[in-house]
Amino acid sequence: MKALVYHGPGAKSLDDVVKPAIIEPGDALVRVTHTTICGTDLHILKGDVASCPPGRTLGHEGVGVVEQIGSAVSSFRIGDHVLISCITSCGRCENCRRGMYSHCASGGWMLGNTINGTQAEYVRIPHADTSLYPIPVGADEEALVMLSDILPTGFECGVLNGKIAPGGTVAIVGAGPIGLACLLTAQFYSPGAIYMVDIDDKRLAVARRFGATHLINSATTDAAAAIAELTGGRGVDTSVEAVGIPATFELCQDLVAAGGVIANIGVHGVKAELHLERLWSHNITITTRLVDTVSTAMLLKTVAAAKLDPAPLITHRFSLAEALTAYDVFARAGETGALKIIITP
Amino acid sequence: MKALVYHGPGAKSLDDVVKPAIIEPGDALVRVTHTTICGTDLHILKGDVASCPPGRTLGHEGVGVVEQIGSAVSSFRIGDHVLISCITSCGRCENCRRGMYSHCASGGWMLGNTINGTQAEYVRIPHADTSLYPIPVGADEEALVMLSDILPTGFECGVLNGKIAPGGTVAIVGAGPIGLACLLTAQFYSPGAIYMVDIDDKRLAVARRFGATHLINSATTDAAAAIAELTGGRGVDTSVEAVGIPATFELCQDLVAAGGVIANIGVHGVKAELHLERLWSHNITITTRLVDTVSTAMLLKTVAAAKLDPAPLITHRFSLAEALTAYDVFARAGETGALKIIITP
Amino acid sequence: MKALVYHGPGAKSLDDVVKPAIIEPGDALVRVTHTTICGTDLHILKGDVASCPPGRTLGHEGVGVVEQIGSAVSSFRIGDHVLISCITSCGRCENCRRGMYSHCASGGWMLGNTINGTQAEYVRIPHADTSLYPIPVGADEEALVMLSDILPTGFECGVLNGKIAPGGTVAIVGAGPIGLACLLTAQFYSPGAIYMVDIDDKRLAVARRFGATHLINSATTDAAAAIAELTGGRGVDTSVEAVGIPATFELCQDLVAAGGVIANIGVHGVKAELHLERLWSHNITITTRLVDTVSTAMLLKTVAAAKLDPAPLITHRFSLAEALTAYDVFARAGETGALKIIITP
Amino acid sequence: MKALVYHGPGAKSLDDVVKPAIIEPGDALVRVTHTTICGTDLHILKGDVASCPPGRTLGHEGVGVVEQIGSAVSSFRIGDHVLISCITSCGRCENCRRGMYSHCASGGWMLGNTINGTQAEYVRIPHADTSLYPIPVGADEEALVMLSDILPTGFECGVLNGKIAPGGTVAIVGAGPIGLACLLTAQFYSPGAIYMVDIDDKRLAVARRFGATHLINSATTDAAAAIAELTGGRGVDTSVEAVGIPATFELCQDLVAAGGVIANIGVHGVKAELHLERLWSHNITITTRLVDTVSTAMLLKTVAAAKLDPAPLITHRFSLAEALTAYDVFARAGETGALKIIITP
Repeated sequence: MKALVYHGPGAKSLDDVVKPAIIEPGDALVRVTHTTICGTDLHILKGDVASCPPGRTLGHEGVGVVEQIGSAVSSFRIGDHVLISCITSCGRCENCRRGMYSHCASGGWMLGNTINGTQAEYVRIPHADTSLYPIPVGADEEALVMLSDILPTGFECGVLNGKIAPGGTVAIVGAGPIGLACLLTAQFYSPGAIYMVDIDDKRLAVARRFGATHLINSATTDAAAAIAELTGGRGVDTSVEAVGIPATFELCQDLVAAGGVIANIGVHGVKAELHLERLWSHNITITTRLVDTVSTAMLLKTVAAAKLDPAPLITHRFSLAEALTAYDVFARAGETGALKIIITP
Repeated sequence: MKALVYHGPGAKSLDDVVKPAIIEPGDALVRVTHTTICGTDLHILKGDVASCPPGRTLGHEGVGVVEQIGSAVSSFRIGDHVLISCITSCGRCENCRRGMYSHCASGGWMLGNTINGTQAEYVRIPHADTSLYPIPVGADEEALVMLSDILPTGFECGVLNGKIAPGGTVAIVGAGPIGLACLLTAQFYSPGAIYMVDIDDKRLAVARRFGATHLINSATTDAAAAIAELTGGRGVDTSVEAVGIPATFELCQDLVAAGGVIANIGVHGVKAELHLERLWSHNITITTRLVDTVSTAMLLKTVAAAKLDPAPLITHRFSLAEALTAYDVFARAGETGALKIIITP
Repeated sequence: MKALVYHGPGAKSLDDVVKPAIIEPGDALVRVTHTTICGTDLHILKGDVASCPPGRTLGHEGVGVVEQIGSAVSSFRIGDHVLISCITSCGRCENCRRGMYSHCASGGWMLGNTINGTQAEYVRIPHADTSLYPIPVGADEEALVMLSDILPTGFECGVLNGKIAPGGTVAIVGAGPIGLACLLTAQFYSPGAIYMVDIDDKRLAVARRFGATHLINSATTDAAAAIAELTGGRGVDTSVEAVGIPATFELCQDLVAAGGVIANIGVHGVKAELHLERLWSHNITITTRLVDTVSTAMLLKTVAAAKLDPAPLITHRFSLAEALTAYDVFARAGETGALKIIITP
Repeated sequence: MKALVYHGPGAKSLDDVVKPAIIEPGDALVRVTHTTICGTDLHILKGDVASCPPGRTLGHEGVGVVEQIGSAVSSFRIGDHVLISCITSCGRCENCRRGMYSHCASGGWMLGNTINGTQAEYVRIPHADTSLYPIPVGADEEALVMLSDILPTGFECGVLNGKIAPGGTVAIVGAGPIGLACLLTAQFYSPGAIYMVDIDDKRLAVARRFGATHLINSATTDAAAAIAELTGGRGVDTSVEAVGIPATFELCQDLVAAGGVIANIGVHGVKAELHLERLWSHNITITTRLVDTVSTAMLLKTVAAAKLDPAPLITHRFSLAEALTAYDVFARAGETGALKIIITP
């Protein structure tokens, strides 16, 4: 079958590889109908993710159809349409039992990282009973690809950890796909103001359409001063880091009000400075999180109830044969305006 | 009256000053019967606290007797024995109403900082109704001085923020008075193990008596390695920073388990490094807090119920006339073994 | 001045009474610009509220202008436009400090009950600093009367206690003003479905306009069966009692899913049956609450942010001179379609 | 093999039955080394539990050794010493994923109810990976039988649901085994007072040894009046129902303070009265719960850390051959002083 394979830093190709097979009794084999590219895939291609060796099929998002199941799989049958969680969860270990699937003893972020992923015609899903979700009949399956990773990530790492609440104030630093996913799901809780901070006016314009109440271009504006003014000098209740570099994490420290939260979503490659000389008495909370996908079932309900529309996150569509082009369009998002790109095998 | 007065960096003296008087209708005048010295007083004397000008009477802890009340005070009467909270709270502003008294719009840490404090024969207490607590008849009033600051601080900033829970594992970095206050109150929640980390074996020996289950001298032992071994490589559920320097805050980052909390209590003078390149996916929470003293009434109940004994924190006693000696003994705690020193006017 | 006075069961009149004056240093005298009638006022008129003696001016809701303040009032000045909370809160007692203003040691529901109320030209407000809220310039002051009682009640007793959450299912039994207030504020949390149950199709039609997703006339439909079918036999996550009689409370027990909440808002005059023989193993929570008005500041923010529009709750307007007519229209809500009636002195 | 078999209301015998075998891939076969009798077993024998048919082997508690495992079991191996949870949990369904194992779609209370139980030489455990817990080497295995049901029940239904907190006040109505289990685990949270209410002085004397601070014999004392006096008229923060009859549930309504919790543990056969005419404005919470055993791993940690000693709950020991005698001793607990009885096959 065809698969997009990582061949070491900077190298990838669309290869013919062996179709995966059931290995463990809890496995399912899924025929991928739609997948997508994540910013993390670009990190792998830069060589930043040591756990992912050359030869790996990339991709940890997607929807598909169950083609085969192991003897222990009880929740799914052949032919079921399923959403693939980016996090593999055994449902049994201490971390899974406390809802921290991201640190599952025999799971976590495996797909397209420590095992072959979804940017292929077929993918093997370990612990299928607890790592796949049934897709309701009649759903927009392509749109549900956004529930594999980006929407639970924005929601769990940004919105839930950030304790976004009715009438509160929120700053989201970074209007890329993950910041926008946070923006969409933040509105579940009716905050009073959502300040979107980015250096790209085009992305900010998208944020406006997605519900941001104020736009701040931090390339041309002092974002901390602007938000101080907008909040009467108080700062925001919730400051979300959705970029992954020290400068933006440090900006979040300038934005947060006493008693507020800095919720980190960004994938960081280097350390940052924490201004404890100022913040020690500021009663703040800082959170980090690899998405657990504990909210997937709930997000599916909000989509069914038309409280969340994932479709606008999708800007481009390619076939798997065009996967290299898709990567190129995604990597040049600044020019192409790409948010999420659907790849259809 | 006599008062211990700050005269700029490095300078203090026991002076004759004017006895304070009621200024606002919500004020009470309290005759101080016992007070104590806080590590923060030493910070002021180093010139580290810009909000505290020369000429200020120091001290923000103590018990006493109400001598006079303003016209709006309704909860206390002359002659009442009272505990003085280190935090002044108006009870009306938005922050007070959400329980964040430390950031009260017209209060917060005022005593011995922005107004004259408790190391004197008398002290004026603004917002008396919400900044004093009645002392139950028959209580050990000297011991209750520990409830002005150190025990609520250890409890709120360390134990509550640290989400210490039955069966959990806790590391407290720093076995000074504040670390010990955290240790005492951590036991309210029956954690399974409390690892006490310090570089002074004498302090660690005190920690053993106060309930620590394991002692780690980080001057001679690799604390991170030791705790990794003790926790099966997992790290601790709660890591409490009770020193206030970058090295100990960074150590806490090495100790905390995935899904755990770093609860900062230390007063920091400089920034620290935050290893987001490792922690971004570690699902941790970091908290900072200037004590709110929201737990004071509850702590009084635990003392009354003999669930908490504050007395062992007191190691030395002096009269107000001996206040300079008291400061000296407290400043040389490493030699003198001082924890908390009672000063009796 | 004119005031609507209770004269014992079934008796009320618009009387000339003495204008109130400041009594305590914490009092404010407020000139009432708009007030309204509550279902509780009808309870008083039935003689059901023993704490309210004949001779009492009724009313516990309203907005107005500060006319005079006591010496201890620090948050308001003469001329300030203010929202009057139905709950008087001292901000100092143990219950106020834990956010349970409804059980304030020297407050609680006083207005129009144990002291004279707001259906008058002037009203004395005890503990003014913590029982009034500033009205932002430019606000629709008449609409803010809905924030004195009915919206905080629907929100705190129904929505917060009911733990309404994104994607969840909610049944609100009773589409009167309080059920509708719950319906409006439930939408802060983006539930997936809101089933509105009533016996009056006109009220249900209003509920539809206010955001209910399903309407169930329990006079003509088996509500429990209907909701069982709509939820796949599961029941609802949150069941809100907004009537105040045994039958509706018992219906809520039939509607709630395992693990769900029954949030009582209704004012009950008699006991109800609790089916513990079925519910003991059902993992449910039942809550009761006299509104605390802890959410008033937050609700003001949601109105300012256009996340909540209180105006549609107002159906009729009268002058104070027409107060008896206003009561009549309100009492015959089934015919008149009255929800909330504004009375303007 | 031998098993204690239910033969319809009032009838049981020790029979020779067929040894169970693995049926599903997730099953384990456990050789029972110790089991016990629960009050619920007596309910079954009265014919009160419709789901349990004649012919059923009783018992849902125990420890043992894994004798055989199905092909999908990954967490246990033959020879492992295990604790059997009274609740069978699949770990996959929506309820398991939210921690409500008691309402597992293919589990819940099955053992000794809808499938054969533990009062036998061998028992088949479905969903073994998530329904068994490894026993640490060197543990007192007999004592751990108390962690199958009674201690998680007292802890989850009484202590966690009851929000027992440092310095708080607790009334436990019923000093039988389940009330005592609640009493033991309540002390994890250092409440200020625990009032134990029962009609049997012998049981109250046990409660004293187990940590109760006050004993109230409600046969000879007006318990509501006594607790009102002890709490200054306030009532208790937490009122635990540990009997299962209307009178004790209604007593809990008289004991609870405004803002407090009534946590029901008792198994009720009939409805009770709920005094909403008084409680509607009392800001209380009532909870019901079939134990989820979500706390089992945590309780094992507290036992390992010597924060909880289950052994004193055991008063009698019998062999399986003496099971009928064991039932008799347990049923006549008033005379025999039986709390929990160990049966050893």
